[in-house]
Amino acid sequence: MTIINLAEKFSMFSDRWSPKVIAEMNDYQFKLVKIEGEFVWHRHEDTDEVFIVIEGTMHIEFDEHMLTLEAGEMIVVPKGVRHKPYAEDECCVMLVEPRGVVNTGEADGDLTAENDVWI
Amino acid sequence: MTIINLAEKFSMFSDRWSPKVIAEMNDYQFKLVKIEGEFVWHRHEDTDEVFIVIEGTMHIEFDEHMLTLEAGEMIVVPKGVRHKPYAEDECCVMLVEPRGVVNTGEADGDLTAENDVWI
Repeated sequence: MTIINLAEKFSMFSDRWSPKVIAEMNDYQFKLVKIEGEFVWHRHEDTDEVFIVIEGTMHIEFDEHMLTLEAGEMIVVPKGVRHKPYAEDECCVMLVEPRGVVNTGEADGDLTAENDVWI
Repeated sequence: MTIINLAEKFSMFSDRWSPKVIAEMNDYQFKLVKIEGEFVWHRHEDTDEVFIVIEGTMHIEFDEHMLTLEAGEMIVVPKGVRHKPYAEDECCVMLVEPRGVVNTGEADGDLTAENDVWI
């Protein structure tokens, strides 16, 4: 049982769109990711997904609208809902989702990150 | 689908040791709680529990040691592990755990809060 310091964990990596696992609770994982630029449209058919913005500004596009989250704000994207995150400048985000969720959902491609990478 | 602002949610209540649900992801809940003073020793037999300190300083006692978390730090308390949170000054904490978890675990008492209260 150890204390997990988010800023310290964020300082340990610099690549974008590549979530790093920092903790597990039952079969759920807490992941940190740095985002900048545009991600791909995708959905997760089997699970909701939580985004918590730790630093910076994240936009997230949906089919019908777009939301902008600042540090200290979070959102639950329901399962099956198509979304595309993007950020003009680097943004630090915590994700919470079940173990095994792939970052690009059904939309395999260049931005598909290796899964279950711990820091 | 709405943006959840943690500071705004914390401003909506002032009672201590009484977690408020702000979001659900699958069958898990995100709860905010303000703590000050000593809680009770308890355990959750069926689930891990995540504490994320948003503001202030939280201490958490275990049978063999004690940890101190500052804002921006988190911990996973494994299921079955006895713990007692306390805070000298008011501390704002986010909890993540399955829907239905009672704050005092098996240790029913005066500090047992009504469950599933949303703000």
